[in-house]
Amino acid sequence: MTDEAPLGPGAEFDMIRAMLERWGPRANGVGDDAAIVHVPRGDVLLASVDTAVETQHFRREWLTPRELGYRAVAAALSDLAAMAARPLGVLVAMTVPDAWLGDVAGIADGIGEAVAAVRTPVLGGNLSAGGELSITTTVLGSAFAPLRRTTARAGDIVYVTGSLGGVAEALRRLEHGGRGEPGGPGGPQRERFAHPTPRLAEARWLAERGATAAIDISDGLLADVRHLAAASRVAIAIDGAAVPCMPGVSHETAQHSGEEYELVVTASAPIDVKEFARLFGLPLTEIGTVSAGEPGVTVDGQRVAASAGYDHFSR
Amino acid sequence: MTDEAPLGPGAEFDMIRAMLERWGPRANGVGDDAAIVHVPRGDVLLASVDTAVETQHFRREWLTPRELGYRAVAAALSDLAAMAARPLGVLVAMTVPDAWLGDVAGIADGIGEAVAAVRTPVLGGNLSAGGELSITTTVLGSAFAPLRRTTARAGDIVYVTGSLGGVAEALRRLEHGGRGEPGGPGGPQRERFAHPTPRLAEARWLAERGATAAIDISDGLLADVRHLAAASRVAIAIDGAAVPCMPGVSHETAQHSGEEYELVVTASAPIDVKEFARLFGLPLTEIGTVSAGEPGVTVDGQRVAASAGYDHFSR
Repeated sequence: MTDEAPLGPGAEFDMIRAMLERWGPRANGVGDDAAIVHVPRGDVLLASVDTAVETQHFRREWLTPRELGYRAVAAALSDLAAMAARPLGVLVAMTVPDAWLGDVAGIADGIGEAVAAVRTPVLGGNLSAGGELSITTTVLGSAFAPLRRTTARAGDIVYVTGSLGGVAEALRRLEHGGRGEPGGPGGPQRERFAHPTPRLAEARWLAERGATAAIDISDGLLADVRHLAAASRVAIAIDGAAVPCMPGVSHETAQHSGEEYELVVTASAPIDVKEFARLFGLPLTEIGTVSAGEPGVTVDGQRVAASAGYDHFSR
Repeated sequence: MTDEAPLGPGAEFDMIRAMLERWGPRANGVGDDAAIVHVPRGDVLLASVDTAVETQHFRREWLTPRELGYRAVAAALSDLAAMAARPLGVLVAMTVPDAWLGDVAGIADGIGEAVAAVRTPVLGGNLSAGGELSITTTVLGSAFAPLRRTTARAGDIVYVTGSLGGVAEALRRLEHGGRGEPGGPGGPQRERFAHPTPRLAEARWLAERGATAAIDISDGLLADVRHLAAASRVAIAIDGAAVPCMPGVSHETAQHSGEEYELVVTASAPIDVKEFARLFGLPLTEIGTVSAGEPGVTVDGQRVAASAGYDHFSR
């Protein structure tokens, strides 16, 4: 890239240089004090940040370094999907303990895989030493009319993409079964944990077809629907039996499984779920309705308690 | 703020809520999946990320929680100053060990102080548990014509803002003297370590008066001038005696002191240093010249080795 600023000397720069070589054209504009990004005229900028910390979000033996890098960035990109944005690029700040130095190349490959899958560049980053591996990803995107959490309205239909529960089931098996190689004790659901897909194209399609609000599932379906209901100041009724479950997963598990990175969207008129499935090879399922009333969520008429979902600070 | 999305339940949200209360109008747009930011028409977006990790970048006994929060964000904002950008906002991802939970309010106050000082909002963030305190700040800014590292040209004059060496001297005293209260063993230079000022207004003023390139001093004057020389593919000669030193600091210390967050700028014609000092209460000092030739830096004719400066991965 002719626009690149050649990097200076030092071991930190050598590591950055090695990552840039692995990324090739997937890195863009790295090397100055800040990355220069062109936001499409008329669009607003969307920005979000997400952190994956060793021991809090994953255990080293569960994922390959490549999967780890992929997953950190894909999870962060999911926040752009929830706003129906087009990605403009990512910045990655990594804290790398000595014991992980040999895995940086693998992690970089996973980051490269995640950005390539959505055709967006790595714009910049930061490398620090530290006592635990940590990957903080800032995602930048743009949209003419972003989908909000605040805009679900009484009368809307609630949809969810994909099939839920695989992540919780994979984590349950990994916690009991040790290492998580493909085909190993993570089971068939492991791929859902190791390789989440940010639903970016799906979200833009849904926004173009009249979706009124959206959120991605990071804390668990019911917890995130609660966030949506609170933000939009509406009541949401979920039909428990309608929640799409991965094979071998209970409805209960599907309703609470976190870090799924599927989307919950509301729409004021029915969306063509067959067309969605045909285009994206993914189910889109009607699971509930929005009404006026005290903000909150019910499943089959039962109110969902505030504690539903995963919370890193409630241990 | 009418545009805010009310947050959902849970202890993590309670902590975020407590921080938002402390920030008041200094937080803006927090609560959706991503922050919505309006980039001024005609400007490019500038984005950078910076991490402060306990034990790597500071010791707990050296700084108050408020100073820690202030310093992390001010240091990140300095990268926008180096591009002569106007800040649009910051996103803060914090990893908080149990032992630090009581200090989160103080850290939040320092973050609030840093953004208020440059009149920019906190746009979003992330909170995680973890084994060591870590603050990763993403800064977003915009500029019509950002100042690059790549654009210093033969014949340019080299300037530096402020007086250097105070940070290294404060760190030397803190490393020997323990706690770093104001008036304590950090000495009169402690303020330079605890309370750096991103030179945002100064940078824009310099850019308007013909500055050709800039970099901020994070690795040390000579190391960062090397980065500038490498990026611009020029030779830079520094007059060692001209480097402005804080009282009580040697020229050697001033030349290598890192995390100063002063600016090195180049300009093709002389800049009115008296007017600069009058406007900003800060010296602007001519310290060298740019010429064609092998990229690199000399001080009083002596070539600067590649190892100059601080490097988190060379321990």
